[in-house]
Amino acid sequence: MASLVRSGTWKALKNGSPSFFNLKFRKFLNPQLQALTVRSFSAIMSPPSKAVVYEHHGPPDSVTRVVELPPVEVKENDVCVKMLAAPINPSDINRIEGVYPVRPQLPAVGGYEGVGEVHSVGSGVKGLSPGDWVIPSPPSFGTWQTYIVKDENVWYKINKGSPMEYAATVTINPLTALRMLEDFVTLNSGDVIIQNGATSIVGQCIIQIAQFRGIQSVNIIRDRAGSDEVKEKLRKLGADVVFTESELEVKNVKGLLAGIPEPALGFNCIGGNAASLVLKFLRQGGMMVTYGGMSKKPITVSTSSFIFKDLSLRGFWLQKWMSTDKAKECRSMIDYLLERARDGNLKYEMELTPFNDFHIALDKALGKHGSQPKQVIKF
Amino acid sequence: MASLVRSGTWKALKNGSPSFFNLKFRKFLNPQLQALTVRSFSAIMSPPSKAVVYEHHGPPDSVTRVVELPPVEVKENDVCVKMLAAPINPSDINRIEGVYPVRPQLPAVGGYEGVGEVHSVGSGVKGLSPGDWVIPSPPSFGTWQTYIVKDENVWYKINKGSPMEYAATVTINPLTALRMLEDFVTLNSGDVIIQNGATSIVGQCIIQIAQFRGIQSVNIIRDRAGSDEVKEKLRKLGADVVFTESELEVKNVKGLLAGIPEPALGFNCIGGNAASLVLKFLRQGGMMVTYGGMSKKPITVSTSSFIFKDLSLRGFWLQKWMSTDKAKECRSMIDYLLERARDGNLKYEMELTPFNDFHIALDKALGKHGSQPKQVIKF
Repeated sequence: MASLVRSGTWKALKNGSPSFFNLKFRKFLNPQLQALTVRSFSAIMSPPSKAVVYEHHGPPDSVTRVVELPPVEVKENDVCVKMLAAPINPSDINRIEGVYPVRPQLPAVGGYEGVGEVHSVGSGVKGLSPGDWVIPSPPSFGTWQTYIVKDENVWYKINKGSPMEYAATVTINPLTALRMLEDFVTLNSGDVIIQNGATSIVGQCIIQIAQFRGIQSVNIIRDRAGSDEVKEKLRKLGADVVFTESELEVKNVKGLLAGIPEPALGFNCIGGNAASLVLKFLRQGGMMVTYGGMSKKPITVSTSSFIFKDLSLRGFWLQKWMSTDKAKECRSMIDYLLERARDGNLKYEMELTPFNDFHIALDKALGKHGSQPKQVIKF
Repeated sequence: MASLVRSGTWKALKNGSPSFFNLKFRKFLNPQLQALTVRSFSAIMSPPSKAVVYEHHGPPDSVTRVVELPPVEVKENDVCVKMLAAPINPSDINRIEGVYPVRPQLPAVGGYEGVGEVHSVGSGVKGLSPGDWVIPSPPSFGTWQTYIVKDENVWYKINKGSPMEYAATVTINPLTALRMLEDFVTLNSGDVIIQNGATSIVGQCIIQIAQFRGIQSVNIIRDRAGSDEVKEKLRKLGADVVFTESELEVKNVKGLLAGIPEPALGFNCIGGNAASLVLKFLRQGGMMVTYGGMSKKPITVSTSSFIFKDLSLRGFWLQKWMSTDKAKECRSMIDYLLERARDGNLKYEMELTPFNDFHIALDKALGKHGSQPKQVIKF
């Protein structure tokens, strides 16, 4: 995989300190500079790229800046991709903050998934041509920039009829939903799952994929103004039941299920009380899978939940899953999910924001303006 | 399985109110009384039995009393056993308190495991003879009495050379240790387990069974006077390392392991901070099994333990295991464990107390006199 850091000099476009950048990057890039001195004059070069770069970990709104990266060589097996769109995911924010266990070497370009159009290809590339739509699959570092040069193997060609914002976001959240429904408990038609954080993209995908498989979903959302509207939206996606957390402040939550069987599998992306609610709903021998911790509160479990109720607790991390053998099926799953998106059977709320307004989108993703749809940068 | 409640009238021996007992029990026993009216005069009858009985759930030291139960018929397939010894386990106490999920119908005789000698057998019994040593296997209700009459199938004949107190206690705690080492993670020689509550009977058995299988054990005990002596005792049993909880108040507990690999499997019978310590020691992808909650505190787990460290949390309950297919192997496991006890390779501390001093033993088991060895009633 080619480095995301380009040869030559950088020009900081925002809050920049070009001389400092040059100094640091020249040293870092020295081997590449040396290589450049012997390259043929006929080498294909990428256009310059505008990129969201951070040199230090810290609050994303203060450590990121948009800079111009100079052209790089498109080598024999490389593909130069003009990015079309890339989302701001919570894990992107955690990587910049430095709290994510796997992080790119600094300085780094932000972003981890997205979609682009092939701009040019190296002489040895057979499988891709200019104009093709591609995604990095498995996802990889540095998608928040206008042009990326990486080895052909990094890119997966997708159906150009796919809605751009779904192509940009399909490899992380919808794939997490799909894997979590498959990998932990054998669910059959008529079985039931329970989840908190049901309005998250993963949550919305779980509702829809479950419904398609004949699995019912019990959904928990936080208390908020307009919760009736939110409930209605989730029901339209296929949610069987939706509760706010405060509606579950009753002695016997299972009494609220009416005719729905007790859930065999639960998903937790919140922690704290919202996780305890999922545990309460689970049936004897059920399992809760944690894939996020938006409340930043831990999960508390009674001894009897383990001994007498025989609950199991596990976790899911897509990045780890991607490193296993199972990940070979990743690309066919992407096709499946994008087909559902094309047919209108996989939907979730997003807001496309022009790249020039990156820091506005970032502020929204950081929660500075309250609850906002998923931010997707349009290049 | 024959009822543990005998026909006829009861005589309360301690704090008793015989007339009240008679009234309640006559009603309860009516079908049995009717059966007695048609029995043959040649029927074999058991001796009267002295039993620890409770009519209501509540504090064990106030709701239990020792009463005399009248003789009962030993039917064709029944075996009358003169009990030799039976322990007071924490689950016995929880059953009397009414906080255990599976409880006998009230009024009930206490106790759930023990060893006895066959006193007499029904005419159809072929496999057992007077003088044989037997245990109820799987364990069952009502072992705190001098004579028990139950169907032949309830009893399992053991080697009479077994130490009586081990025969009395083998079916619950040692079997729990054995199953937990087998049923959750495939452990190979050189692997490591970690446990809290290492001085419990299960804890002591885990150390010894693990060592026999070439598995190292990291052990956590609570801070107490004489902890150095306790450490030495556990080391003599085979413990590789023993820490008090306060010794683990360091940033990097794994730094204390020196050359020992990180544990793949952990056992928790305490909850609260002691459970968190087990989680800290576990390796990436490790599992913690909860089988008790002596601190009465819940288990608290960070989100990242599930997502990034990929820990799994489960529970073990022997009574549930006994209801599964796997329990068929139960009796051969008992043989294995008793053989190890006979050879001196499975040891744990117990105190034999005469039945006449039952309430002294109960007070010790209830923790009224500080830390005490496991109490075993000798009839």
